[in-house]
Amino acid sequence: MNECVLILSGGMDSSTLLYDLLDKDMNVHPIGFNYGQRHSKELDGAAKTCEQLGVEYKIIDLSGLSDILNNNALTGNIDVPEGHYEDKSMEQTVVPNRNMIMLSIAIGYAIDIGTQDVFYGAHAGDHAIYPDCRPEFVHGIQNVAELCHYYPVKVHAPYLYITKGDIVARGLELDVDYSLTWTCYAGKEKACGKCGSCVERLEAFALNNNIDPIKYEQDDN
Amino acid sequence: MNECVLILSGGMDSSTLLYDLLDKDMNVHPIGFNYGQRHSKELDGAAKTCEQLGVEYKIIDLSGLSDILNNNALTGNIDVPEGHYEDKSMEQTVVPNRNMIMLSIAIGYAIDIGTQDVFYGAHAGDHAIYPDCRPEFVHGIQNVAELCHYYPVKVHAPYLYITKGDIVARGLELDVDYSLTWTCYAGKEKACGKCGSCVERLEAFALNNNIDPIKYEQDDN
Repeated sequence: MNECVLILSGGMDSSTLLYDLLDKDMNVHPIGFNYGQRHSKELDGAAKTCEQLGVEYKIIDLSGLSDILNNNALTGNIDVPEGHYEDKSMEQTVVPNRNMIMLSIAIGYAIDIGTQDVFYGAHAGDHAIYPDCRPEFVHGIQNVAELCHYYPVKVHAPYLYITKGDIVARGLELDVDYSLTWTCYAGKEKACGKCGSCVERLEAFALNNNIDPIKYEQDDN
Repeated sequence: MNECVLILSGGMDSSTLLYDLLDKDMNVHPIGFNYGQRHSKELDGAAKTCEQLGVEYKIIDLSGLSDILNNNALTGNIDVPEGHYEDKSMEQTVVPNRNMIMLSIAIGYAIDIGTQDVFYGAHAGDHAIYPDCRPEFVHGIQNVAELCHYYPVKVHAPYLYITKGDIVARGLELDVDYSLTWTCYAGKEKACGKCGSCVERLEAFALNNNIDPIKYEQDDN
């Protein structure tokens, strides 16, 4: 195994995973998805990260999906909820079946370029709120990926049982440039610091006695 | 169960399934996919069928996928092979992981509109050549669909163990307008009658002592 496909959203988890795979001398083919999300700050950051690291990044246009995947806070008309990441309100941030959609395309891409390994950054912190980040879902996808083509495709989720704090710890070892990663759901110039995703990010840096390099709205106060 | 999503390509199988579900008084939400295939004759026919039957049809634009799913005869630059459907050459018509991609989006759509049933027209005749039409793949997808959201989504493939001949038999009972369905891979004005897909279609009508209502190039001779 040397070639692989990586789902790279531009958030902290998949960005750390990119550094991690390159550190293992893998030839990584990262892909990102524009599925009609309200802002593209994550993808823009991912593109800059890839440029810095000398890796080609493909962004797949799935904006046609916004026609049918509407009833949520990321691609639809519902407001982004504030509060803790594990609150019930965060269910509004679920884009229906997003991970299965992205994984199925990443698997297709792997087959197209003749590799059999696909990586994605599901982690333990997402298990509570997102069903499609849980181990039983990941194992189901791994099973399907082995059956969908003439040879088995392997789906790897190496962060599945570690937390965001652990991921940041790994990323700090790898010198990940977290200033290029974006986590906030709101997508303004500075991160809001209030949405569940910001709260979890700030906690992950605090757990590592480290300071998040991105700008937050409350920095101005 | 009364509402459902149906993957409707405009071929014979999914078109028959549409009639079949309507015959069972279901409220069907058919979706089709433009994934950069060379021609849209199937989708055009599906749209006409839906118009005739008074059903709304959504066509999802996935043409961005043609950037990464290239090495095949349907979306890429390889010639459409002639010969029997079960020949090795038909492997060139495999768009990598197409069924998983379409199913994952159909599942997302089902969640978005609040239903939990998704139908697709996989059938026994495709088992030999397409891994993603085989029962073990379908069962794997059914398992994942039950895990991907807060409630289980059910994927149904009612034709999984019957042949194209059986499907046409059912369709003739249901008065399916097969003149609006398209099967040929080539996508010229008339069907080529030579590609594996045409050969299988012609056999299905012959088995039912019936004549295919669409025009073939050899009709001119």
